[in-house]
This record gives sequence, C-alpha cells and structure tokens, in this order.
Amino acid sequence: MSSAWLDEVSWNSDGLVPAIAQDVDTGKVLMMAWMNRDALEATVREGFVIYWSRSRHKLWRKGETSGHTQELVDLRLDCDSDAILARVRQRGGIACHTGREHCFYKELQAGDKLSWQPVEPVKKAPGDIYKSDV
Amino acid sequence: MSSAWLDEVSWNSDGLVPAIAQDVDTGKVLMMAWMNRDALEATVREGFVIYWSRSRHKLWRKGETSGHTQELVDLRLDCDSDAILARVRQRGGIACHTGREHCFYKELQAGDKLSWQPVEPVKKAPGDIYKSDV
Repeated sequence: MSSAWLDEVSWNSDGLVPAIAQDVDTGKVLMMAWMNRDALEATVREGFVIYWSRSRHKLWRKGETSGHTQELVDLRLDCDSDAILARVRQRGGIACHTGREHCFYKELQAGDKLSWQPVEPVKKAPGDIYKSDV
Repeated sequence: MSSAWLDEVSWNSDGLVPAIAQDVDTGKVLMMAWMNRDALEATVREGFVIYWSRSRHKLWRKGETSGHTQELVDLRLDCDSDAILARVRQRGGIACHTGREHCFYKELQAGDKLSWQPVEPVKKAPGDIYKSDV
C-alpha cells in the first residue's frame, strides 16, 4: 500500500496518534484510543477499527473478544495532522468494556463538591460480554 | 476548589490529558487538544474551554484571539479516566484556525492512491479572523 497518506500523519514520539471513534448513527463520541502506523493501515485495509494497545503492546482489533467491532465508515485527519476521527458503525451498540454504549459515561457534577458520576446505564454485564472459553 | 475530581483524572507523564470538544447542537467533533490540571480547573471555573498549549507552554483560552470561544455545556471523563469529552457551544460556528467549522476536515479518499483531501469549506478567511491590532 502506498504510504504517503501514512507519512502525512504527525505521529508522536512514541509513533502514535490519538484516534477518536464517533458513532455515525447517533453522533455519540464512543471512545478515544491510540493508533500506530500498522493499526491505521490495517484499519483501512480491513474496514474495521484497529487500535494499538499501549498496555498489551500489540494491535487491538476492537471487538475481537466482545464482538463489539467498529465498522469503519470514514476517516478524518485534523488540521495539524495529529489527531484522527473515525466515524463508525458500532456493532452491538456497546463500545465500552464496562458494557455501556460509550466510554464517556462519567459526568462532572456539582454538589457539595465537584465529582465525576456515572450517568449512563450498563447495557450488558461485562461478565456476559467477555465469556471465558470453557 | 476541592481537588479530588482533579486527582481522579489519569494525567499522562507530561501532566496532560487529551480533551475532545464536541458541538452540542450539531454533534460534530470539533477538535482535540490537551489540558493540564490548571486548564481543566479553569475550564470549569470560567465555563469556557481552556486548553494547555504544548507549543506555547501556556494556558490557551480557546477563542481569546478569534472570538471563537467554546462555552462549556458539560464535561465527561472516560472509563479509564484518561480522556475528556467537553460538550460545548461553539461561538461563531468556527472551531478551526483555518476558518472551518471544525478541525477534522481532511477525509481519507481512495483514488489512484489513498490521500487526505479537504472536504469542508472555509467559512471565514483566517486573515479576517486573526486581525492584527493596528
């Protein structure tokens, strides 16, 4: 695959770029993770979003365990070429490993003092999403 | 200001967290930039989004020169507490310094080869946005 479009991305010093996934049907911002060059190239080639897992140090095919894949609709690069927006169709309607629709479920709320409060329901229990193979 | 909510954020090794701004009226993802602790605290205190400029090494009150401020509607923190989503009202309908509605205006397109192509119009020329004081 010709790589000029990959060269145009401003990879950070770790060779990564932040990637935001947005649900094309609901408009919700689902999650933010990271891609390296291989992940971005594979995302385009396979048509499903693939991140780089910084904790596992390997390509992370989103949904490979849960089935909650993100079908790629289109990709955008920002003005400074250092952030990517992937518009996706979220399989299963669940992007978050907690079983919620998206990862941004903690809202800053005022009260006696400011605090982050979960404001969105768990649609499916994580234990039912990540069944171990017996 | 009580700081427990600030302590809950997983700041990276540079003391920063990625912050995504989404237009609450259109649903568009406007931009992604960075906040440090002071920027996040000031964002909440002032009710307008304030980033940390990594190039200028100072707080960046979005819109301080252009007038294209981002009025804060609400703030979300993701499951891992290492990304922030700010839902905003974008003053002037322009978030990008290029004069476009948002920063994610380069779309990956197929053709002879893949390339990033600008697909959104400039709403206001940058020269008219950033007028020098005479």
